[in-house]
Amino acid sequence: MSEAVSEAFATIMCRQFNATQTEVSETAASLDGSFMLANTYLIFFMQAGFAMLCAGSVRTKNYMNILLKNVLDACFGAPVFYLVGYGFAYGAGTPTNKFIGNNDFALEDFTDWNVFIFQWAFAAATATIVSGSVAERCTFHAYIAYSTLLTGFVYPVVVHWVWSSEGWLTAFAKDDYATNKDDLLLNSGMMDFAGSGVVHMTGGFAGLMGAFFIGPRIGRFSPTGPNPDFQGHSNTLVVLGTFVLWFGWYGFNPGSQLTISTANDLTIVGRAAVTTTLSGACAGVAALFIAKYRDGIWDLAAVCNGVLAGLVGVTAGNM
Amino acid sequence: MSEAVSEAFATIMCRQFNATQTEVSETAASLDGSFMLANTYLIFFMQAGFAMLCAGSVRTKNYMNILLKNVLDACFGAPVFYLVGYGFAYGAGTPTNKFIGNNDFALEDFTDWNVFIFQWAFAAATATIVSGSVAERCTFHAYIAYSTLLTGFVYPVVVHWVWSSEGWLTAFAKDDYATNKDDLLLNSGMMDFAGSGVVHMTGGFAGLMGAFFIGPRIGRFSPTGPNPDFQGHSNTLVVLGTFVLWFGWYGFNPGSQLTISTANDLTIVGRAAVTTTLSGACAGVAALFIAKYRDGIWDLAAVCNGVLAGLVGVTAGNM
Amino acid sequence: MSEAVSEAFATIMCRQFNATQTEVSETAASLDGSFMLANTYLIFFMQAGFAMLCAGSVRTKNYMNILLKNVLDACFGAPVFYLVGYGFAYGAGTPTNKFIGNNDFALEDFTDWNVFIFQWAFAAATATIVSGSVAERCTFHAYIAYSTLLTGFVYPVVVHWVWSSEGWLTAFAKDDYATNKDDLLLNSGMMDFAGSGVVHMTGGFAGLMGAFFIGPRIGRFSPTGPNPDFQGHSNTLVVLGTFVLWFGWYGFNPGSQLTISTANDLTIVGRAAVTTTLSGACAGVAALFIAKYRDGIWDLAAVCNGVLAGLVGVTAGNM
Repeated sequence: MSEAVSEAFATIMCRQFNATQTEVSETAASLDGSFMLANTYLIFFMQAGFAMLCAGSVRTKNYMNILLKNVLDACFGAPVFYLVGYGFAYGAGTPTNKFIGNNDFALEDFTDWNVFIFQWAFAAATATIVSGSVAERCTFHAYIAYSTLLTGFVYPVVVHWVWSSEGWLTAFAKDDYATNKDDLLLNSGMMDFAGSGVVHMTGGFAGLMGAFFIGPRIGRFSPTGPNPDFQGHSNTLVVLGTFVLWFGWYGFNPGSQLTISTANDLTIVGRAAVTTTLSGACAGVAALFIAKYRDGIWDLAAVCNGVLAGLVGVTAGNM
Repeated sequence: MSEAVSEAFATIMCRQFNATQTEVSETAASLDGSFMLANTYLIFFMQAGFAMLCAGSVRTKNYMNILLKNVLDACFGAPVFYLVGYGFAYGAGTPTNKFIGNNDFALEDFTDWNVFIFQWAFAAATATIVSGSVAERCTFHAYIAYSTLLTGFVYPVVVHWVWSSEGWLTAFAKDDYATNKDDLLLNSGMMDFAGSGVVHMTGGFAGLMGAFFIGPRIGRFSPTGPNPDFQGHSNTLVVLGTFVLWFGWYGFNPGSQLTISTANDLTIVGRAAVTTTLSGACAGVAALFIAKYRDGIWDLAAVCNGVLAGLVGVTAGNM
Repeated sequence: MSEAVSEAFATIMCRQFNATQTEVSETAASLDGSFMLANTYLIFFMQAGFAMLCAGSVRTKNYMNILLKNVLDACFGAPVFYLVGYGFAYGAGTPTNKFIGNNDFALEDFTDWNVFIFQWAFAAATATIVSGSVAERCTFHAYIAYSTLLTGFVYPVVVHWVWSSEGWLTAFAKDDYATNKDDLLLNSGMMDFAGSGVVHMTGGFAGLMGAFFIGPRIGRFSPTGPNPDFQGHSNTLVVLGTFVLWFGWYGFNPGSQLTISTANDLTIVGRAAVTTTLSGACAGVAALFIAKYRDGIWDLAAVCNGVLAGLVGVTAGNM
């Protein structure tokens, strides 16, 4: 080619190449976005699992009550997390704050919709954990106050500590991890891949506090003889709930990698799916034999609880 | 480089670049296709939600009947929509027709499988809306005729008007929107992002007509005293159905953007997921308090209906 | 451009181009991985469908029993398939073996996590098919032995024959199909797209053997008069299970293409979604009329069984 032609070629080539590069970057970003949304939907569907699990685990006279609480967790949680929760969790105002987020309330000037809705699904899951712990003995008003406070304040604050780049426990400070890890707590920051601590321990502790102050159900423990039987009213619902939760956990754990478009992401996501499966399944088997040894029966509810314990337990360790 | 070398380089570069560009375009198209299929499955799953919602909302003696109708909506709908429905909705023969499609019957010479199956999921959802409106009092034969006619003719005609590029109400006429909007109805065409009108109003109107001609259930309204209690037989199923429908709605609303591979698509899809969530949740909260004010009780079924009303209401407005 | 400049341009261009090409390849691979994982989750969710279908189809006194078996299918299956099943199915040691795999036990030196978890979902589905065939009359210990043996040995061996590149029935021998098909069985190898034979016939035959040796339930068939009525205890659960299975089948059939990132993949995946839908739906309609003709009733359970038969039947034929 002549010099003039080769210059023209270079110009055209660069223009075309830039267009292609933009298309490539957008496609990768959209793949990540599509992955995050699909996981959001799976995590949201855990609400159905929680509802069925709880409904099946309580006595017939109380299942309506707990169903209403579960539905309202999702309903109150969305506006509350939109108005203040997300801002307390991730909002980085000027100056930033190590203890609580201080920006992005009601998503003002915020357009990262996928991130918000993904985080909301986590918040709603956290809130719902409590309902089982106080089942059959918490008043409706107290529960709604509890659920709103948890979704709008308690859970967001814990998220800010651990998962925002400003929190005092963060492992994700804004600069490169390798160069700044000396500034992190214990030179590491708190690692919690998908939220064994942030989600399940927060929900679990809130439930424990509730159970502690409310006390056991009337007649639950006998002071003299063996404890009376407090069987849930439907094991079918318990099994359905367990399977729906297991299904949703595939959004929760592998989805916590947030992106999938690079080879490294894909490996971590796939491995998290494998470890999630093995942990849930093996814990179910373990619970089967423990219950058999302890109570002498093959106990369906114990297996389901074992599966859930295994799924909770592996949540942090997928990193 | 010498001129000969630079010419060879340019040739190789162009060939490589074209191969890469093809791969990029195919990957983006496959991402869009994968997105559409995933949303199709979610929308299809709404059939399960409708079935549980309806079964839970009728009295025990009638739940078998309504379940059969729901299953058959899906079963009759697929071959009917395949044979004629899709063709009436989107078929563009020569000449095209502003009122009804006239091509692609039985998918002859048509291979855009994703588009067909996505549209079928919408048609099946429309048909199923009717079953609740005529619950407990429509004969089996009449219902099957109703469902077939709706899926094969009524719904496709409405779709042709609004969503095909030939319909008299379309906002998607073939040429560029900016240059031809003067030719559209009211200089705009009818905008209905995911089908508040096309799907829910069509289904709802069909249900209203059914309810009008059949009349209320015997004993439903008392001419003298307060109305007798016509409670559905299982609130657990109502809640399960509501959550499954909410879950499926994430295919319905955000999925109606059809593609996700560009940055603009991704923004619209994510925002639709957020608005869908907020609308459903807030409507559930509103229904809770309205029912409490009106009837004095915290009414689970009212909350579920509120959620569904919120989800229906936001369907058109995501554009 | 001068020769020096054009050489520098070529160098930079190549470097940039290679980076872009890597990004393109990774994005396409991640799209395929994301597709495979999403399908895995759908297939896993069929466990919930099977559990509901079985629980609804047995009498009240036995539903706890069959639910426990269904949950344990998933729980025992995961570690067993991890330890030996996958290795017997796809492990290619040195030398390879035409009858059984001999490598990759406990995923030693194996990191293709997506492939493993996808195959596990298939194995778990196969194991669960049996539970319905021996419902209400198989001891717990026998069933666990059955399920473990099927997931860990029988199913993997069949997979090795048909789907591994080394099996004696394979159509996927390592070299190009066109050049080596003369070496395949009957110059073709066994084609079974998504496992009508490998999955459903293996599960079905295992169930048949179980049913043959155990015999019918006591009182199931009357030696003198008409058979007594052995209705399942909940048609709601049968319908829920059927819809969940249908939903999961969209992971099973279209997902068996394994990848979606090329235009050819996308066509096959979309077409499989269409044929799966039409086959399930039409078989449901056929079952409705057959049952009406034979028994004189519109039979909900028959329609559900028809749908499932249609879905099973089309599984192999999507290639």
